[in-house]
Amino acid sequence: MDRERLDRARAAMAARGLDALLCRLPENVLLLSGCWPLAGMTFLLFPREGPAACITPGSEAREAREELWGGECFTFPFGVLEAGDAYADVARILKGLVRGSRLARVGIEEGFEVMAPPWNAAEPVASARATRALLAEVFGAPALEDATDLLYELRARKTGPELERLRRANEIATIGLRAFQAAVDVGVSGIELAALVEREVSVKGTGHRGARRVRAFAQVAVGPEETSLGYRPMEITTTRKLRRGELALLELGVVADGFWADRTRVRAAGTASSEQRDAYDAVCRAQEAAIRAVRPGATSGEVDEAARSVIRQAGRGEGFIHVTGHGLGLRYHEPVPLLRPGSDERLAEGMVHSVEPGIYVEGFGGMRVEDDVAVTPTGAEVLGPAPKELVP
Amino acid sequence: MDRERLDRARAAMAARGLDALLCRLPENVLLLSGCWPLAGMTFLLFPREGPAACITPGSEAREAREELWGGECFTFPFGVLEAGDAYADVARILKGLVRGSRLARVGIEEGFEVMAPPWNAAEPVASARATRALLAEVFGAPALEDATDLLYELRARKTGPELERLRRANEIATIGLRAFQAAVDVGVSGIELAALVEREVSVKGTGHRGARRVRAFAQVAVGPEETSLGYRPMEITTTRKLRRGELALLELGVVADGFWADRTRVRAAGTASSEQRDAYDAVCRAQEAAIRAVRPGATSGEVDEAARSVIRQAGRGEGFIHVTGHGLGLRYHEPVPLLRPGSDERLAEGMVHSVEPGIYVEGFGGMRVEDDVAVTPTGAEVLGPAPKELVP
Repeated sequence: MDRERLDRARAAMAARGLDALLCRLPENVLLLSGCWPLAGMTFLLFPREGPAACITPGSEAREAREELWGGECFTFPFGVLEAGDAYADVARILKGLVRGSRLARVGIEEGFEVMAPPWNAAEPVASARATRALLAEVFGAPALEDATDLLYELRARKTGPELERLRRANEIATIGLRAFQAAVDVGVSGIELAALVEREVSVKGTGHRGARRVRAFAQVAVGPEETSLGYRPMEITTTRKLRRGELALLELGVVADGFWADRTRVRAAGTASSEQRDAYDAVCRAQEAAIRAVRPGATSGEVDEAARSVIRQAGRGEGFIHVTGHGLGLRYHEPVPLLRPGSDERLAEGMVHSVEPGIYVEGFGGMRVEDDVAVTPTGAEVLGPAPKELVP
Repeated sequence: MDRERLDRARAAMAARGLDALLCRLPENVLLLSGCWPLAGMTFLLFPREGPAACITPGSEAREAREELWGGECFTFPFGVLEAGDAYADVARILKGLVRGSRLARVGIEEGFEVMAPPWNAAEPVASARATRALLAEVFGAPALEDATDLLYELRARKTGPELERLRRANEIATIGLRAFQAAVDVGVSGIELAALVEREVSVKGTGHRGARRVRAFAQVAVGPEETSLGYRPMEITTTRKLRRGELALLELGVVADGFWADRTRVRAAGTASSEQRDAYDAVCRAQEAAIRAVRPGATSGEVDEAARSVIRQAGRGEGFIHVTGHGLGLRYHEPVPLLRPGSDERLAEGMVHSVEPGIYVEGFGGMRVEDDVAVTPTGAEVLGPAPKELVP
């Protein structure tokens, strides 16, 4: 049980005057209960006082009971012939739970437009009309208020057990980074590299320090045309094969039991030109400078500038067209912190964010190095450190 | 351009008195425009009269313009330093578009709780508070009405070009089914099989008949304990290795440029017992009987009973604990049709659904065979047919 997480959640609810939180996004259910739901139809009632209640499909009750820190677990039939309307079942159970209790103000997830996927369902579930009607029926519409900011605030600073989960996710991600580095060669395609990385992460990551549900999302850009677009949030990996001296850029998201890693490596096929080496050296030095600047109280803008100034001094400032980093944890990308120019947002102990300077120049190509760091009392801890040589 | 799709959408809007549809779920943007958005921040304004307008991040404008059937494409900065508030950008562009036009009734996606993932973002985007505020600001809240039922109704019957996309997705899925069948053997683990299938689908599916964005979601249950739970919508694939005579059950979702396949195969390691063979024979005969029963005008209940009666006659009726099939297309699972006992829902030409009888018995294990069929004028077409032998 993550006692610190529970205490912080309840303190934030008290400060806000909320009697309960009602979550159904797997990322928030995990935050507050230890259980990472599978199919997206699990609802968590987390009262400020008393035990939490988890309402989950019978098909995943076993996993829920194994993972839940405590409280009660209620189930309903799901995915089988006797299943009825899941929303009606959830409403019935919730009504029974709140009968006689006074939950005058209930915080809900009204503001989550972006969400983490549920590992392998291929079908995330979000709250829309049906859930809003359900919650209004159970709690009364006036009792409901959006608690998205409170949830993100809680998520911004990780507890000890959460940091350990993020270390593990990053260790698993390094399996993919190393497989990529070993496989980049003349004649290999981007899609072959991406598929290899995903396979290695699945096979070797499953079971790593007890991780049960592991998946990688890899994108590999190959050659100057593709890598110069490698800043895009979604690169299309193709069958284009590497030629000698070209770069491959791997963008890798890994989830292990609901905790994410976000990493990038770049590797040259066979050999690298001095121009490529110089630019890559600037990217690596920029990343090191940013990591050295991370500490509680530093501003996001200072850390961004630490990286940006190195690349500027290398004469490549115009090529560094994106932010230096972003928060992550229960998602691949989280909003706090955001390391962008001029930001006076203050880093705090327990925050976890990426550090990912890059350079993108049409014709020349693109490169980026990305690792995840935790803000410690005195500086930064790199999670799952891994080699970053441009060539073997 | 899919003229039939556009005509049917506009006829449905006219019947309902809607002046426009406003979609942002990638699955619905694809339905109405031909463009499958990458990052989830693309909005499509689809008026009943006049050209559609696609508002998309600059980072994916090239792909959008290549795919759109027509209409105009508007972009805003995204994922780069000069990017501002994407919602404000979208609102500004939308306001410019609707100025002077009379869109008194605009259909939106209020009812989509389940959604397809955006291929590789690892982060789907749904409409929540920010989008609702944006749409109310642009169109005026009274103009907005939920068009979820209309969108699902349109999606239930596929057009010719859509069927061709689903054939392609199923052809790609067969790459995974065959790789699974060839790899099942004593000593191989579930996670190794799942990872292999996903890799083969990515590497060999990308580029197949022009498919650009291909991903597989594979779940493999191994041995009696795991396969007897193989009816669950989400099975956890483990490092458990196959022993001689045990079954492996593959549940496979494949997406190819936004169109899905949903398939299942079962295979024995080395040899199968006569009890396993008899049960599997009943499952296969049940599937064949159901496929023979499919035709326009048949009820979902009749097709379910065609499968269920075969399994009942084989003495395994109690083990067939789920429905016989469900719709699919722009998602892994769609609500229409749903082939369950007693349903009087009528099949219609152009519907596409799975046919997936199964038997699950604790101690003995579980098995299922699943293929996707299209309802033709006279019967059913199996999409991407593939072998289903239990043993080599």
